[in-house]
Amino acid sequence: MPYISNEQLDNFHHLYRINVINSCSGYKSANLLGTKSDNGVENVAVFSSVTHIGSSPPILGFFLRPTTVLRNTYENIKTTGLYTINHIHEGILEDAHHTSAKYDPDISEFDKTHLTPEYKNEFYAPFVKDAPLQLAMEYLEEYEIKANNTILLIGKIIGLHVEDDFLEDDGFINLSKAKVATINGLDGYAVPELKTRFGYQRPKNK
Amino acid sequence: MPYISNEQLDNFHHLYRINVINSCSGYKSANLLGTKSDNGVENVAVFSSVTHIGSSPPILGFFLRPTTVLRNTYENIKTTGLYTINHIHEGILEDAHHTSAKYDPDISEFDKTHLTPEYKNEFYAPFVKDAPLQLAMEYLEEYEIKANNTILLIGKIIGLHVEDDFLEDDGFINLSKAKVATINGLDGYAVPELKTRFGYQRPKNK
Repeated sequence: MPYISNEQLDNFHHLYRINVINSCSGYKSANLLGTKSDNGVENVAVFSSVTHIGSSPPILGFFLRPTTVLRNTYENIKTTGLYTINHIHEGILEDAHHTSAKYDPDISEFDKTHLTPEYKNEFYAPFVKDAPLQLAMEYLEEYEIKANNTILLIGKIIGLHVEDDFLEDDGFINLSKAKVATINGLDGYAVPELKTRFGYQRPKNK
Repeated sequence: MPYISNEQLDNFHHLYRINVINSCSGYKSANLLGTKSDNGVENVAVFSSVTHIGSSPPILGFFLRPTTVLRNTYENIKTTGLYTINHIHEGILEDAHHTSAKYDPDISEFDKTHLTPEYKNEFYAPFVKDAPLQLAMEYLEEYEIKANNTILLIGKIIGLHVEDDFLEDDGFINLSKAKVATINGLDGYAVPELKTRFGYQRPKNK
């Protein structure tokens, strides 16, 4: 099996290099983060780094670079303390991916796509209408990653909107039934079919 | 769409609660982390939190609880500075998931499954044989997450083994061709088919 060393990675063309490195961690979550600035401008942006950190308390994290287009999301979360996580599904792949384009801060991606903001339970930040799973999130803490100056932003799940059809008897949310997408690299999308569940594992006796 | 509040989450049965919270972030990466203790005991364990943090330098992170079964992985990484990340593929789903069982530290999961260790380029930590993508990793830094005492462990990619068949002309690694798996919740596995790539997005003029 061919080997690519770190030195070779360094010498690749920039685009080739970021494709390799963005694809090599495996499949990523596909989410739209919804925020609203304190002067009312709505923002929605695709993120592929939302990760489960713990269940008690229920917390999720994601990584961002404060110096890029994603700054709107960061600034709105820091100002208002609130954001939403909405799952990208089969019907909105193209519009969801387009939110990665660099628009000025006073332009809402909701106005540049067919994505529609939705407000529920008087939560300040907009959800994305028709997303099969919508999470209301509250800012908890952040860590600056010294190695590359990115930020790990951690939030607590305040509540979640999910269709009964996708929620199974044991609390498992069937992402496949909900036609939720997953991301490969920077721009590849798949909509997986669930293959199997294996259950909790105990040691084997030999 | 039904709403589940944080208070309701708190009152659910423990297993129901962890299923909901582990499923609600979206699809997860499916990896086997390979390590070897300084006295030579090999360890391999499934992780679903490996996340891309940045391309320059090429770094990936994952979350772990030092007080659980995953401690072997953590201690071996801290002692030796090295580990491998191997992608779970269609052919090893059941054995890969079984590595989540809690074995004593002196027992290698390689001896309890059909997974086979493989050594390449004199790298100290074992790769998982036949994994379509194998990353050689070096410990970089860690962060203790105050909210729940988990640890974010960050490593640098030293090099990667990948078949030419899966590596496309622009550096995109086609996880679908490699039959790489993704995880839904704690125990659901899917092997996605790539649907589309959308490319880099630029703002639309209206």
